[in-house]
Amino acid sequence: MRAAVMRDRRLVVGEVPAPEPGPGEVLVRTLACGICGSDLHALKHADTFVETARRAGNTFVMDLARDVVMGHEFCAEIVEHGPGTTRALPVGTRVCSRPVLMRATGPQTVGYSNEHPGGYGEYMRLTEGLLLPVPAGLSTEHAALTEPMAVGLHAVNKATLQPDDAPLVIGCGPVGLAVIAALRLRDVHPIVAADFSARRRELALALGADVVVDPAATTPWQTWREAAVWRDASRAPALPPWLPGPAVRPAVVFECVGVPGVLDQLMAASPRGTRIVVVGVCMEADTIHPMLGISKELNLQFVLGYTPDEFAATLAHIAAGAIPVAPLITGTVGLDGVPGAFEALASPEKHAKILVRP
Amino acid sequence: MRAAVMRDRRLVVGEVPAPEPGPGEVLVRTLACGICGSDLHALKHADTFVETARRAGNTFVMDLARDVVMGHEFCAEIVEHGPGTTRALPVGTRVCSRPVLMRATGPQTVGYSNEHPGGYGEYMRLTEGLLLPVPAGLSTEHAALTEPMAVGLHAVNKATLQPDDAPLVIGCGPVGLAVIAALRLRDVHPIVAADFSARRRELALALGADVVVDPAATTPWQTWREAAVWRDASRAPALPPWLPGPAVRPAVVFECVGVPGVLDQLMAASPRGTRIVVVGVCMEADTIHPMLGISKELNLQFVLGYTPDEFAATLAHIAAGAIPVAPLITGTVGLDGVPGAFEALASPEKHAKILVRP
Repeated sequence: MRAAVMRDRRLVVGEVPAPEPGPGEVLVRTLACGICGSDLHALKHADTFVETARRAGNTFVMDLARDVVMGHEFCAEIVEHGPGTTRALPVGTRVCSRPVLMRATGPQTVGYSNEHPGGYGEYMRLTEGLLLPVPAGLSTEHAALTEPMAVGLHAVNKATLQPDDAPLVIGCGPVGLAVIAALRLRDVHPIVAADFSARRRELALALGADVVVDPAATTPWQTWREAAVWRDASRAPALPPWLPGPAVRPAVVFECVGVPGVLDQLMAASPRGTRIVVVGVCMEADTIHPMLGISKELNLQFVLGYTPDEFAATLAHIAAGAIPVAPLITGTVGLDGVPGAFEALASPEKHAKILVRP
Repeated sequence: MRAAVMRDRRLVVGEVPAPEPGPGEVLVRTLACGICGSDLHALKHADTFVETARRAGNTFVMDLARDVVMGHEFCAEIVEHGPGTTRALPVGTRVCSRPVLMRATGPQTVGYSNEHPGGYGEYMRLTEGLLLPVPAGLSTEHAALTEPMAVGLHAVNKATLQPDDAPLVIGCGPVGLAVIAALRLRDVHPIVAADFSARRRELALALGADVVVDPAATTPWQTWREAAVWRDASRAPALPPWLPGPAVRPAVVFECVGVPGVLDQLMAASPRGTRIVVVGVCMEADTIHPMLGISKELNLQFVLGYTPDEFAATLAHIAAGAIPVAPLITGTVGLDGVPGAFEALASPEKHAKILVRP
């Protein structure tokens, strides 16, 4: 089959073997697959990606000497049922799935794997038991955004927000936008969001941010402080007389940039007791000053992925219009356009999410 | 008065002005003051210490061009009451206090300050309202250990341990030993503790560790895994068939080393979902791989100090014998011995806590 392949640490379009479905698996045809920032990172920092996965104790680690077909944000249609399937969903059904294959020896990733091609190829094998049918009336393009939006839902769940917490979202790429959408779903306000790109600040407002900040013009924390003042002053804890007022609500920051240096900057600027939820995937080594964390008793919660329930809930929210994904889609390409799309995504003024239609 | 002074980034013994008590303050004579690893760090990394305090937004930052008398783990006796004091505790009373001066403009540190000399000098000024009388029958030396032991109590409180959590303490210097004592107070078991030093592993057992590990011989996590197996197998969550058993309890690690590189090693070796409580004070820049945190959804809780209640409770626990501090005291010096003691503390085989008696 044709695919955009990571081969010798470069992205090329070529032929790879089509996958065959094993027991309990189906063969699907990729209808649409979003390009994820993690794929850009994985291509650029391939060796670090593999080395870190190995250090973390992951069982399945890509072999960079062999082909990898990435792509884990997909909507597909069933082409063929493998042995031992229930065939509950007929051939032709549009489906979403977590990018995971459940094998007897354990789960294996689809997309960061030498064995299981992802959505940058014409066909994939998926586990029948994980398939979620796309609700009638929901477009294939919007369904393909289930995976990245589920990341936001999960990050907000892991933040265990308390009623008085006031969030700040740093970075309004697809991950930050997913977090904003999930905060809005929970009716958390005000949602303050920061990005250097005017286009991305517009998208943040479209997804549900209440206040957006351009860090080149003002510091995100200054804007957050103004927005996070207690509206009901009687609920605010008494400030000691030596602290300048007004009192602000507890801070929960979502780090959605994933570039070295951002974490340390956040740790330096955060108010005492801030909880930092690290959603942006920084694949390189990063330098922090632990003293900053200690002197303010910061908490860092690293998050990854989503639960099966969160994934299914996200698809339902998108179908119901509760997560408005349309503004996110800024381009569509065929397989031949994938290498160019990887380069185009470096420009935040133009793109948020580009979909591949193999 | 005489004092061991940080002067021009070196530790010397010399004369400094004796402090005078302001309104609501008392003058005390230092009876005993423990040497803290943070003081060793602050001397060795003075510029980083100051720079990081500034970046963190601290209001009071030491000026290294001027004298600093460190020492914040003290027991003292009241010499003179300043203006506006209640004199509830008479002259001659032995007292402990958090190393903080409460001024109208806000709290100021005692010991990391150009204005307020700490316990490496003959006299200090303290806020009357913070003084805790040393219970009759409790030795001055043991009372002086209230401050470092309170750090352990606070770290364990901030860990918000759940009934099934199994702790691992990395580093058995005074901070790690304080954490072990606090875990024992809570009747958390098994307490697994790791240190390269045989002497410190002995101390860990004396303070309440159940199992000690020499990281040169075996990995702390291997020993922890053996110790953290569910004793009541019926309470263990079912493992998926592809994971090797037996199931282990949730991990809470206390990082009590505070040296660059340890955090990243811990992040690499920790099981999925581990909570890492960062108690060791690393004053230098440190490199981590955020991907390790992300891929296992780790949580990092940085902690500092203690609350007033925790400080008072620690003094009461020491007086009641519930925190056995005697084994910790491995030496006593006069002021002239302080510079030598700073050097001797680099050797973990000999020393844990050295007390200064000015």
